[in-house]
Formats: sequence, C-alpha cells, structure tokens
Amino acid sequence: MAMTMTQKILAAHAGLDHVVPGQLIRADLDMVLGNDITTPVAVNEFEKAGFDGVFDREKISLVMDHFTPNKDIKAAEQCLQCRTFAKRFDVKNFFDVGRMGIEHALLPEQGIVKAGDCIIGADSHTCTYGALGAFSTGVGSTDMAAGMATGQAWFKVPEAIKFNLTGKLNENVTGKDVILHIIGMIGVDGALYKSMEFMGEGLKSLSMEDRLCISNMAIEAGAKNGIFMVDEITEDYMTGRAQGEWKVFTPDEDAEYVATYDIDLSQLKPTVSFPHLPENTKTIDEVGDVPIQQVVIGSCTNGRLEDMALAAKILKGKKVHDDVRAIIIPATQQIFKDCIKEGYMDIFIDAGCVVSTPTCGPCLGGHMGILAEGERCVATTNRNFVGRMGHVKSEVYLASPAVAAASAITGKISGPDEIM
Amino acid sequence: MAMTMTQKILAAHAGLDHVVPGQLIRADLDMVLGNDITTPVAVNEFEKAGFDGVFDREKISLVMDHFTPNKDIKAAEQCLQCRTFAKRFDVKNFFDVGRMGIEHALLPEQGIVKAGDCIIGADSHTCTYGALGAFSTGVGSTDMAAGMATGQAWFKVPEAIKFNLTGKLNENVTGKDVILHIIGMIGVDGALYKSMEFMGEGLKSLSMEDRLCISNMAIEAGAKNGIFMVDEITEDYMTGRAQGEWKVFTPDEDAEYVATYDIDLSQLKPTVSFPHLPENTKTIDEVGDVPIQQVVIGSCTNGRLEDMALAAKILKGKKVHDDVRAIIIPATQQIFKDCIKEGYMDIFIDAGCVVSTPTCGPCLGGHMGILAEGERCVATTNRNFVGRMGHVKSEVYLASPAVAAASAITGKISGPDEIM
Repeated sequence: MAMTMTQKILAAHAGLDHVVPGQLIRADLDMVLGNDITTPVAVNEFEKAGFDGVFDREKISLVMDHFTPNKDIKAAEQCLQCRTFAKRFDVKNFFDVGRMGIEHALLPEQGIVKAGDCIIGADSHTCTYGALGAFSTGVGSTDMAAGMATGQAWFKVPEAIKFNLTGKLNENVTGKDVILHIIGMIGVDGALYKSMEFMGEGLKSLSMEDRLCISNMAIEAGAKNGIFMVDEITEDYMTGRAQGEWKVFTPDEDAEYVATYDIDLSQLKPTVSFPHLPENTKTIDEVGDVPIQQVVIGSCTNGRLEDMALAAKILKGKKVHDDVRAIIIPATQQIFKDCIKEGYMDIFIDAGCVVSTPTCGPCLGGHMGILAEGERCVATTNRNFVGRMGHVKSEVYLASPAVAAASAITGKISGPDEIM
Repeated sequence: MAMTMTQKILAAHAGLDHVVPGQLIRADLDMVLGNDITTPVAVNEFEKAGFDGVFDREKISLVMDHFTPNKDIKAAEQCLQCRTFAKRFDVKNFFDVGRMGIEHALLPEQGIVKAGDCIIGADSHTCTYGALGAFSTGVGSTDMAAGMATGQAWFKVPEAIKFNLTGKLNENVTGKDVILHIIGMIGVDGALYKSMEFMGEGLKSLSMEDRLCISNMAIEAGAKNGIFMVDEITEDYMTGRAQGEWKVFTPDEDAEYVATYDIDLSQLKPTVSFPHLPENTKTIDEVGDVPIQQVVIGSCTNGRLEDMALAAKILKGKKVHDDVRAIIIPATQQIFKDCIKEGYMDIFIDAGCVVSTPTCGPCLGGHMGILAEGERCVATTNRNFVGRMGHVKSEVYLASPAVAAASAITGKISGPDEIM
C-alpha cells in the first residue's frame, strides 16, 4: 500500500506497516513542545489528570518566548509556573528568557527536532519542522499534557496534497512569497486537515530558511502539517546540529494525493496578504498606494538569519520613513549574535530601526509593537486576522522581509525594486 | 546677596539680579520635556486651555520611551497622540521608536540640554540634567502644557544643601553607590524641595555617567533638583555635543546652605537599597543571603555606556545563574551601537542575558521584565516602591551595575568582589 511522507512517518511511529487516510492511530512522540502561554494550561491539565511524571525529560521543550521578557504580572506568573514544572521534572529543554529564541526558530537551530521525528506542540505553528522532513503539528494544551505524561498522541492520518515545485526563485522573492502565493491560490481552508507535501526539482533553489517559512504557514491553509522531501540541503543543515540520528522518509511513487499543484517558482513575484486573511493576496504590482505606520521583521515565520540579511541588504544606507516605526526581532539569541557579527545590527540602527531581543511579542498582539486604531503594519509574521496586532481597526499586511524593509523606507507598501 | 548655583540660574532665567529661597519667580525655559505617558495628558490640558501654538518648536522634546515599542493598544494610542501633536507644531525634538533612547540619557547625549539651562520635564527624573550644571526639575503634565505654550514656568526658589565631595571612588564603586549612600543617610525626604548641590575636589573622580546617575536620583531624596559644579569633565562632555552655547554658574563663596555634608568617596562601598524605599540602604557586606530571580541593568539611572562596560567586565566569560533572568537595556540607540562595537553585546548574550532595545519598560512595571509574586530583582533603576516592577509581593533591590551583574551570576545579592 503506497504512502506519502507523512503517512510513512505516522506508520513508523505507530508501530504499523502502513496506514491509510482517515485511520485513527496512536503514535510515539519524539518531542512535545509548549510555550509560556500554552504550557501553564497544559500543566493544569497534567495535574488535574493526576500525572506524576513525564515520559522522557529529554523529549519535552518549554520555550518562554511569547510574552517575554514578562510583559505583565500575568505573563510573569505563567513563566513562573512553567519554570516550576520544568524544575520539578528536570525538563532538559527548558529555555528561559536570555537563553532562548522563538520556539520554531530555536528548535531546528539547536537540532532538537530533525528529519523523521513525530512532534507535537501546543502552538499552531509547530508545523514549521516539516521543513526538516519531520511530522510536526500543533495541538491543544490537553494533548500537550497527555503527550508529556505518556509520550504518545492520537492522530487521524491525513490525506495529502502534493506541491510539485519547479524553477528557481528570482532575486528578492522568497519562501514567504511561495507560501503566500499558495494560500492565495487554495485559500485558508484549502488544505484543511491535509498534509501539504513539497517536492520537485524546485527544492534545489529553496534554502532551509525558505522551507521553514513555507512549512510554518501550512497551518494558514488549514493543513495538518507541511512537509518537505529531505535532500542535501536538509542534511547539510542537520549535520553537526541534530541531536541524535535522523531518518529520511521518502514518498512512494504511487502515493495518493487528493490534489497536485505544479508551481513554477520563477513565475512568482513578491506577494502581500491584505487584511484580514492570509488568502487575500496581491502581487506587489497590484497593491496600489497603501501608506503604513509600522513594519515588523521577525517572528517564527521570518526571523532567521537569511531574513535579517535580506532586510539589511535593503536597509543599508537608507533611512526608515519618518512616519514609520520599524521593529526588527531576530528570532534567537544566536541569530541576534550573527546579526551583530555580520554588521546587520549597525545597518538596522543607523536606518532608525528598533532591534529587540527575541520575542513573539508583536506578532500576536502581545507587546513590543502594538497598533493603534487606524494604523497599518507590514509584517513578516503569519496572521493578519482582525485585531491580531492591536486595535480591531488596525491592519496587518503579511509580506517577506524584502517587502517589509522596502516599505519601511518608502512609508507605503513597496517592493524591493522600488528601493534597490 | 550671595546665591547658590541653582539660585543663580533661576535668577538669570527670571530676569532678576538675585533671588532668595522661598521667592516665587517666573522663569524662561530652555527646554520642555515630555514622554509617551505624560505628554498625552499635557496635550489634553494644552487643548483644554485653548492654546494654539508652542512657544518654540526647537525647545520642546518629546521622547517615546516608557511603554515603547508599544506594549498595548493604550500605549499605541498615547504615542499616536504625541506624534500627531509633534506633527501639528513641527516639534523638532520628537523622538519616535527606533530613533530614540530613554529621555534622560538621550537629551544629554544629543546635547539638547547643557550647562546653565532652565529645564522642566513631565517626568520626575528630569533632575538628571543637573549633572551638566543645569537647573532641571520634574513637573506635572499641566505645567508641561503651560510650558510648551508660554515658554515659562513658576518656581519657588529652593533652599540648598551642599555636598562637599572629597577623595576618590574605589574600583567597582560608582555614582550609584554615592547617591544610594546619600539617600540612606538623609532619607527619602532628606532634601525635600531643596536643591542638592555637589562640589568639592572629589568631583575629579566622578565621570559624567556617575554625575548623571547621582543627579538622576536627587528626586529620591525629595530634592527639587541636584546640580553639579561645572568643571573640565563637564565641558569635555559638552564640547562637540551641546546644541548652542552653554553658561557656567558658580556658587558664591558665601552662598547659604541649610546643611552641608562632607563625603569622602574613598570610604564608600557598594550599596544596595532594600525594599521598599531607596533609603533602606545596606552596604554590600551587610546584605546577607538574598536569593534573586531577576536582574535589570539599564534605565535613565544606569543605562549609559560606562554602566554597560562595568556590567560587561563582570559578566565576561561568566554565565547568568540558572534561576535568574538578566535583562540588559542600553539607554539609547547610540549606546546600543557602542555596546556592539565594544563587544559588550556578545559578552551579555554569551552569558545568557537578554539585550533589549532602549525602553523604560521594566523600571516602572511597564513591560519587558515584570515580576511575579514573591520574585526578587536587583535593578540599577531608581525606585523600589511596593509593586514598582510587578506584583505587590515582589521586591526590587536598587544597586549599581557592578552589584547587579555580580548578583546575576551568583543568583543572590552579591558584590563584584565575589566574582572578580
């Protein structure tokens, strides 16, 4: 019976020879993730259920990234609860303020997740790790609690959609434009409970940063997960980084897909998602005149070094528009350091940008860049729902770091070609 | 009639030959300052009073530093109101997110305030600029509104207390220890509505950073202002920096002081203010065993380059204690850049510290480092009142960057000698 990548990983983790779409299975977990918002809820459930131990202290990751450095007393209490739980069970991967990064940037960077893994996280963008060839999906805090205690989770095996990528991205077109294009094409429920499976010779032109960004936003098309074929680029990334052996799962040639999309990467343009859904995409030549007041470059979607490099290339020697606040947030402490080393920090500050310590803050309207009524922001984040970054009458436009940086300079939504 | 420095500056700005303590005068202002919290209140008063112009667009400074990058929708609305006001009257010194720093670090650094000036600011720590030999004091937002419109303010001429400094500070003893020692000695109302006037040969061993820190906390002894004699160190600092000519006011030899304190700097030790008042001081050898959970190094009191250098010296090659979050906030974008250049940023990050963009945030319980119930923080900030940095049952211990950095490493209140 032919299987997709996702189906093979799930079968292997359920101890089965094969699985079929719709089948309910119980799978072993290689990693259970939570953050400072979702972990406290999971800890409460964990205690309510009477669990008195974790299945494996090395297979739990708790990352204090959402409302940290503590934005208020509630955030402080939540982190304290996570810290206390981590101490109680000697959780190995507890990442506190100052030693961390945004969870979905940090775990791949530190080699805590890798190809072939089966991962759940109490955060919807846990699907990010599909870029490494892992099965990885967001769950609720109750599933996180059960996962921490038992090391297992129930899944319904998803159907699959195949994305056959060809061609090569043009300069200043990125993984973000790929995923925004796809979501614009299939809609925010276009992959509902399905796995998005990325393959084809176009992969060669996609960096790990591009892939992590694409998998990250699979959930924005409603997908259960978004997974990439493992190739040399993946293995190069994992080498010297992955904690433990990885395993490569390749789809059977006759695996079944409910749909197949052929995407020629060379045809893609910088793409922007207009309010208030990621599917409301326009290519940069269609956006018109949209003045903005804020730019955010960062998040689990686009806070990696390549994103910083792209922003720096565009901002170098330029000034942020007087009417714009530009907030740049490297996603991990390591990326922050690399930005210093590469001179990006100086470029950002000279241009008039804020550079913040890693935090999810503004992306989900937490802190560090909240919008007033009527304000517009171009953000490299992943959601532009009503009120996502502040006032219900504010607006978020999703784009790549190239578009965000260019827009910061002009004060309106702009493509990098307007600047370079 | 003999006058103090403060009295001479006030007389000159009131167009009078001399003034006496208790006299009510109306003085011309060289600068009117507000931040993102106080300016909106002032703008409302300005509009309520029917003012339709500012006295001088070059003599108003509005700094968006307290709850920025916007911590919530209210903060966003407040900044928007400031921005709109600044645009309406073409305010020259409007410092928005990304182009700013903490007001009391920024204005001296940019040469916007200077010796001989008469300055009001709707922020209690406006007294900082006394370090430059200016008269500078905090006012309410209504006075700020009137000041922006008329360029004048009413003052009651203060009596003076003389601090005659001798000797030289020992290594790792700083201006912070000087002012904490003084507040411990005279109490939080020890200089109520008086000017604290610093002079003596001990000044030679005090850097501008030390002096800015000392003047900054004059308000914590209840003082109207805290002013330093201008010397070569002051003039070196202002040279190439001050916007316009400065003027040096020297106290008459027979000026009257209601009290005189002789302080031998060489006798001072690292000093810590215990909760919940700055006057509750202990020297480092008296503090005992006090475990902590957070350290904050920054603020208008101690966020300058010398403070960063001292923290870096102590943190170099060390790790922050597992139980401690260490949050380091350079006070301006320039200091942030200098920290990069000097390698301090790498030291901080390697040690496990957060490095944030300039913000007042944690100092006043705004954001970026709020405490949970029962948590303790060693902070280089200026106030340790109940609930100042978070929960009413949290505690703040005021200290120098040397003590704060050492405490971050040991996980309890510690002097630098325990580390070096």
